[in-house]
Amino acid sequence: MDFSSIDNGRSGKGLLFVISSVSGGGKTTVIGKVMEMMNDLRVSVSHTTRKPRPGETDGKDYHFISREGFDRMIESGLFLEWAPVYGQKYGTSRSAVDAITGIGFDALLDIDVQGAMQVKEAREDAILIFLAPPGEEEQERRLRSRGTETEHDVDKRLEAAMRELAFMEEYHYSVLNDDLNDAVHTVSSIIRAERCRNP
Amino acid sequence: MDFSSIDNGRSGKGLLFVISSVSGGGKTTVIGKVMEMMNDLRVSVSHTTRKPRPGETDGKDYHFISREGFDRMIESGLFLEWAPVYGQKYGTSRSAVDAITGIGFDALLDIDVQGAMQVKEAREDAILIFLAPPGEEEQERRLRSRGTETEHDVDKRLEAAMRELAFMEEYHYSVLNDDLNDAVHTVSSIIRAERCRNP
Repeated sequence: MDFSSIDNGRSGKGLLFVISSVSGGGKTTVIGKVMEMMNDLRVSVSHTTRKPRPGETDGKDYHFISREGFDRMIESGLFLEWAPVYGQKYGTSRSAVDAITGIGFDALLDIDVQGAMQVKEAREDAILIFLAPPGEEEQERRLRSRGTETEHDVDKRLEAAMRELAFMEEYHYSVLNDDLNDAVHTVSSIIRAERCRNP
Repeated sequence: MDFSSIDNGRSGKGLLFVISSVSGGGKTTVIGKVMEMMNDLRVSVSHTTRKPRPGETDGKDYHFISREGFDRMIESGLFLEWAPVYGQKYGTSRSAVDAITGIGFDALLDIDVQGAMQVKEAREDAILIFLAPPGEEEQERRLRSRGTETEHDVDKRLEAAMRELAFMEEYHYSVLNDDLNDAVHTVSSIIRAERCRNP
């Protein structure tokens, strides 16, 4: 009997995980901590039409690409998912995911609800995790505490969050982000569990 | 929005978990450690026709019952699963499970492969976990190290183990028990993940 295909915690399967949340849901912090804890997991690098910000590296933070280049990639069907966000386009190329899963690592996509639904359609093996915000009040507090947005922007984001929440049941898992450690522990548990799930 | 139904780590759903292994697979040790770590999880108390051993308490270690009583329970369809083992009968009553899940705890059944297949048939919501032994040699060493069995018994158990292993793919999860902490971590991760899985 050969049990080398059973991996507790380690992978080797090249699974595809998607994590989404709503604005102010605390997704970026949770993903950062999960990445510190887990082996064999890589965040897929997205393509974007927006300009690099100071300190951002092409190919690491994003694949920065022209609008024309992005549109050509759409036409050629090279994206697993893409979406327009505030006048720019963001997308996950199939090859960015394949570069991770092809060498036996698991890929993690940090994308919004509309992107996640596209991935679900294209890849029925994808495992979708929704990070639920701790409640409307806390979420509003988080958005305001950024201090970078106007009252109108905060209202717009809260509205968008309510629309996004309606998709939660389309995800395989819902993780409540009311406590950072707890949420990180749960997300890494899901990844660990899925790695030893039988086909 | 009400997120009270999302529980990271805690339950409230009354899930049904089944853990099986093969002889010498180290299941009892793993389950003991998992029980220390997890909240809201209870091992279901089985019925048996065998006599109590010194130190065993009726209703805690087993529900001890006469052969006639056991057979009447079978006829009345009160068992979720049952099996003859070495001339005695062992079974899990539906009410033993309901007593746990009815108050929102998760039930854990520590049963063999034939019992697990009965549960899978009766309860399609059951979550089946197979603890795979670390390999034939290590398993044989474990069986012999008990020192309580004859060469013939060890051979018989190894044969049975090979038959049981063929059922592994019928389980939802396969956990390799080559390292105790690793196996305990993985089983508790599966429980934690299943608790926030969407229906």
